[in-house]
Amino acid sequence: MKRREFLKAASTGLAASAAVAAPAVAQSMPVIKWRMPCSWPKSLDTIYGGADAMCKAVAEATDNKFQIQLFAAGEIVPGLQIVDAVQAGTVEIGHTASYYYFGKDPTFGFGTSVPFGPNARINQGWWMHGGGEEVLNEFYKTYNARALLAGNTGCQMGGWFRKEINSLDDLKGLKMRIGGWAGKILQKLGGVPQQIAGGDIYPALEKGTLDACEWVGPYDDEKLGFYKIAPHYYAPGWWEGGSMLLAFVNLEKWNELPKHYQAILEQAGHYANTWMLAKYDQLNPQSLRKLLAGGTKLHVFSPQIMDASYKATMELHAEVAKENANFKKVNDSMMTFTKNAYQWFQVAENTYDQFMIRAMR
Amino acid sequence: MKRREFLKAASTGLAASAAVAAPAVAQSMPVIKWRMPCSWPKSLDTIYGGADAMCKAVAEATDNKFQIQLFAAGEIVPGLQIVDAVQAGTVEIGHTASYYYFGKDPTFGFGTSVPFGPNARINQGWWMHGGGEEVLNEFYKTYNARALLAGNTGCQMGGWFRKEINSLDDLKGLKMRIGGWAGKILQKLGGVPQQIAGGDIYPALEKGTLDACEWVGPYDDEKLGFYKIAPHYYAPGWWEGGSMLLAFVNLEKWNELPKHYQAILEQAGHYANTWMLAKYDQLNPQSLRKLLAGGTKLHVFSPQIMDASYKATMELHAEVAKENANFKKVNDSMMTFTKNAYQWFQVAENTYDQFMIRAMR
Repeated sequence: MKRREFLKAASTGLAASAAVAAPAVAQSMPVIKWRMPCSWPKSLDTIYGGADAMCKAVAEATDNKFQIQLFAAGEIVPGLQIVDAVQAGTVEIGHTASYYYFGKDPTFGFGTSVPFGPNARINQGWWMHGGGEEVLNEFYKTYNARALLAGNTGCQMGGWFRKEINSLDDLKGLKMRIGGWAGKILQKLGGVPQQIAGGDIYPALEKGTLDACEWVGPYDDEKLGFYKIAPHYYAPGWWEGGSMLLAFVNLEKWNELPKHYQAILEQAGHYANTWMLAKYDQLNPQSLRKLLAGGTKLHVFSPQIMDASYKATMELHAEVAKENANFKKVNDSMMTFTKNAYQWFQVAENTYDQFMIRAMR
Repeated sequence: MKRREFLKAASTGLAASAAVAAPAVAQSMPVIKWRMPCSWPKSLDTIYGGADAMCKAVAEATDNKFQIQLFAAGEIVPGLQIVDAVQAGTVEIGHTASYYYFGKDPTFGFGTSVPFGPNARINQGWWMHGGGEEVLNEFYKTYNARALLAGNTGCQMGGWFRKEINSLDDLKGLKMRIGGWAGKILQKLGGVPQQIAGGDIYPALEKGTLDACEWVGPYDDEKLGFYKIAPHYYAPGWWEGGSMLLAFVNLEKWNELPKHYQAILEQAGHYANTWMLAKYDQLNPQSLRKLLAGGTKLHVFSPQIMDASYKATMELHAEVAKENANFKKVNDSMMTFTKNAYQWFQVAENTYDQFMIRAMR
């Protein structure tokens, strides 16, 4: 309405009702601007892309009233300190992998993945209807944060090795870049885990300070070029069966949001979750083909290595559960759901997938 | 703002800006009421529950401004005429299985599932990043509708049989209640497909007019009691590898929505998609256990039956593709994505699942 029209309307009494209605309506669509740092460089259009999809979904659902600006790792917060920044209220929200923070408490591991945990679909089932969201958010509350589901990579690969790994002996003394909690299992089996940021892995492999490394899967790995030095590519990444990404929201900021903005943020996270998983499923096949054409040698970990890793994981988790009530609570919840789900998956899902894999070769 | 306060504000010039802003703000959160009939009885808290979750998500995201009222099958529209009602504009939106309408055009089949199509995750990958949404909505446009992703059942079961089915000979003359397009494959193999609504299956089995039936999976099937008469329960449902449910929106009604309401509706559909799949993954395991404890005999279709069904499907689809350009276009798009995805799934996802299935027994 132009000012001249307003003045005309005012004289007929129309302005009065419009003005009275305005405050209530304005309150229901407040303009809110948040900043969301994440743990990813922009070059990872899968995982950074998923965080970006979440921000865009929120903007689109609110007619741009609720704007969340995404920042790549290190732009305003270092990539591995997202939870700290959210906890302190330095930022309102952050997109990260919960297991980066297992040094604070190993319970953080379950928010991404623990070795021999659920696959992507079972993980989201646990989150949504298996009590996962509740037990994890009860835990995150002590860090002044609330987590929203906001992505999944699917099952990752077991990494790149300079030499073939056939038996447990081949793991002894193996210097491997391996993310988070899984390093503890490698250590139990005689390996030497290293925590190195993505960009530093390639030079370390080249210099020989690393014998092996793992990152994500074909699409993300191809970009970092590991195949040029360590040609043996192993499946599966048994420590990342279906890694979730979460958006952590500062609790006071969450509570200040209107209820429908909370709902929009949560739904946008679910949208990003599907978006990211679909992106990986779209891009990994073509990268895998390129890697194989370039000389990458594909292997599956031997039953001996898988069984020993599983046993070491169950032992470690039982030890930690004795000392840490949060860890025990979340582990029991997740593994009960996972066990039940796999007992069902073996019947229909897996027999179907097995047939389709054979038919689609 | 109370009228007295408004009058006071008016005298200071504050009312002018509030009044000018009002029309734009009011327009951005209009009150809209839609009706959504669906194809499901209320008793199916999984699939009806998913439709309900979508309506609630929309209401929560809009502070109850955009209300979608859900109606069970037959309340305002017969359960198998949802697309017709949406096309005619009798209702704004409807939640249904696209393959119910394959009689209009077999291309409708791809909107739910076709035999030997993608599993649930690959299906949503195709929808989101594989061009699935685009090719299907190009097709649905000719029915004056736009479809939104709004649920998935996961891989279904192959149904209940009075006698064991070991070879192709056992399918000859078999009278089986089987949904949609898959009946054509059964017919090619010598069986006699029957289209019977859910509630009529049990009496037909009891009377012996049916030898077998399929419905969904353990949780939904248990309610209908088939196990009491036909104890042989087969996996997998190769005609429903990961059945999508869609919400069809009348095109004019879609175009009339503000852009951010469109975004909210779409995101709510994604939320419902995950909600429903998670619900099945939560409930199927416990129902399967109950069925097995009650004497149900679990089987996997023999390789002979699977191979012959696959061959018959590929032949039928090639025949239809020759006559029907829409069918060919969507089939090519879906099967290219599916083939690529399964070639990747066999590497990490499937080797991981295989190990976990063994470990979780």
